[in-house]
Amino acid sequence: MKNTMIGILGGGQLGRMLALAGYPLGLRFRFFDPSADAPVRYLAEQVVAPYDDHLALDQFGQGLTVVTYEFENVPVTTARVLERRVPVFPPPQALEVAQDRLQEKRFFASLNIPTAPFAPVDDRESLEAAMVRIGLPAVLKTRRLGYDGKGQVILHTHADVDPAWHALGGQPLILEKFIAFARELSVLAVRGQDGSIACYPLVENVHRNGILHRSIAPAPGLASETQTLAETYARRVLEALDYVGVLAIELFEIDETNTRATGARLLANEMAPRVHNSGHWTIEGAVTSQFENHVRAIVGLPTGVTLARGYAAMVNLIGSLPDITMLLALPDTHVHLYDKAPRPGRKLGHVTICAGDATQLADRLAVVERYVLAEAR
Amino acid sequence: MKNTMIGILGGGQLGRMLALAGYPLGLRFRFFDPSADAPVRYLAEQVVAPYDDHLALDQFGQGLTVVTYEFENVPVTTARVLERRVPVFPPPQALEVAQDRLQEKRFFASLNIPTAPFAPVDDRESLEAAMVRIGLPAVLKTRRLGYDGKGQVILHTHADVDPAWHALGGQPLILEKFIAFARELSVLAVRGQDGSIACYPLVENVHRNGILHRSIAPAPGLASETQTLAETYARRVLEALDYVGVLAIELFEIDETNTRATGARLLANEMAPRVHNSGHWTIEGAVTSQFENHVRAIVGLPTGVTLARGYAAMVNLIGSLPDITMLLALPDTHVHLYDKAPRPGRKLGHVTICAGDATQLADRLAVVERYVLAEAR
Repeated sequence: MKNTMIGILGGGQLGRMLALAGYPLGLRFRFFDPSADAPVRYLAEQVVAPYDDHLALDQFGQGLTVVTYEFENVPVTTARVLERRVPVFPPPQALEVAQDRLQEKRFFASLNIPTAPFAPVDDRESLEAAMVRIGLPAVLKTRRLGYDGKGQVILHTHADVDPAWHALGGQPLILEKFIAFARELSVLAVRGQDGSIACYPLVENVHRNGILHRSIAPAPGLASETQTLAETYARRVLEALDYVGVLAIELFEIDETNTRATGARLLANEMAPRVHNSGHWTIEGAVTSQFENHVRAIVGLPTGVTLARGYAAMVNLIGSLPDITMLLALPDTHVHLYDKAPRPGRKLGHVTICAGDATQLADRLAVVERYVLAEAR
Repeated sequence: MKNTMIGILGGGQLGRMLALAGYPLGLRFRFFDPSADAPVRYLAEQVVAPYDDHLALDQFGQGLTVVTYEFENVPVTTARVLERRVPVFPPPQALEVAQDRLQEKRFFASLNIPTAPFAPVDDRESLEAAMVRIGLPAVLKTRRLGYDGKGQVILHTHADVDPAWHALGGQPLILEKFIAFARELSVLAVRGQDGSIACYPLVENVHRNGILHRSIAPAPGLASETQTLAETYARRVLEALDYVGVLAIELFEIDETNTRATGARLLANEMAPRVHNSGHWTIEGAVTSQFENHVRAIVGLPTGVTLARGYAAMVNLIGSLPDITMLLALPDTHVHLYDKAPRPGRKLGHVTICAGDATQLADRLAVVERYVLAEAR
């Protein structure tokens, strides 16, 4: 891997953890981020410029072996410009699909991956038509730039329609049926340049205020057929896009009663063409971390084993940081800070708890959650 | 850990792995190394200057929270100069003791830690006197700057004395009885600022051409009393020096027959007041790595659990690098490269193999060793 230099679009915590996973393989890193204050600023080269600065992109691209991204709202044009001179993985088409909820849902549908019923909403009339087709409750979402629960409103009754339209109207939208799902799961998969695919054990995710709060891996009490089904879906997406790198798909697990109604056990909600917050547990909890596997894949190295080492949970540190002394004093508890300034709703770090069995994990997780949530107040 | 900046004397692979372990804790790093080509050059700030450049040391010290070292031949004066303005851990006295084999052996003796019989050698007469006292075979060593088997000659018979004197005479030396030890072990221990001490499971080390080739952790077939004894010795050293950080002690394990003769089961050979090559397995193989525990200790955080996660082995990559593709394709095998130019006898990286039991470990290790040694030819 002599003199292999990876260019990463985005210099946030995901980029930071990619570099920390890649340095041991002798890889070098250069980041592109509009902010001089990015979390990677101390640990690698950085080009600070807006994503549409072609001169800066040109400078960034010089001498790179491969380009990747850690942020799925990187403009597709930026990736395409770079692709003219250096391979970009995952393929920019994955960005394109993931950036538009309508395209994304149509893409899932085209691969026979079930989703909640959905319809495009371009104006008030198409919203009415969509509601007739889908029924209420439903979720009205912006097609682009939504994340962490932003850009979406639940329509419980018709009384919610006017305020929702007031908040979101005037931009391309999508209406999705509100699904009474049992829980959110995610599947992380990695595809190498040789086309080999490996999936991590499914993760159970819990959100608070629209932001991922906690993941447990492997997802407790998961039926093995559910794992297999999710892997089948991930495989279809990866192959359709001729994907290289790590991909995450968020899934809704439907309970038995609703499965009979919808005919599906899992519904695809959205995909992220990058390493994912719900895969942070893999740093300590899996044989090979999602970060290492992503860099291995994009530079053409074999991907590593994706098995869990035991039982793991991840809790995000959001908005403000607790004193980490107490956390580090707990057994097999690992703290990751991103070197970011505190701000409400901002992901500042995460804690991974490992354990030898599910009960031990639950006990340790309870201690960490109580502490983290008390401190965050 | 906001704005905590750690200064590290030495920018080699140990410094590199310290930084990679410390970034997740939100820590920042600045290195001091005479070479602009140091392995840390891409991943942190670096002051490039000789260790006696006081102006550069002054610049280096600015704004640091704490200073540590990753190289035990850093001049003690350098550490003392920095100590005037910023805490230095481990204490410079540990450097002083470790840099001189005679002081080191006397220090062990003062703590009732058994060593091979030894005597100072300052001239030809004291060599003769030492041989009379200790007998042959014995090892003649330079007191200072010996590492990786350099600066030592074995005296099997009197015929070896003249050539040995020719090679090493004219500098302070030490003569040590040649010990027919069963194997070399090492104990790694960490002491926090609160005085708490934790030890890793003992490691079995095998050298080739005087350089560490391979470590297995935990050391196979180790008697629990041997672990306890080594921990007792480590504790004495740590407490005598009011030590903070990770310390390694190399030990000779003596078989039963020789134990009856020497009266000791373990002899201390030397200590390293820093993270150590025989502790690299802890990155994947222990709950908390030696690197993370060292940075936790020196910044005053609680140290983490030092238990092994399973069975691990480490093989050094020396002189030239094999193609790592084959290594990465093996299960639970982890490659660490230091971004150094190849050179005979130079440590360029290491491979850690993890396994669920000792047999699986031995099988995987055999594959890795065969490959690494074949490629190194």
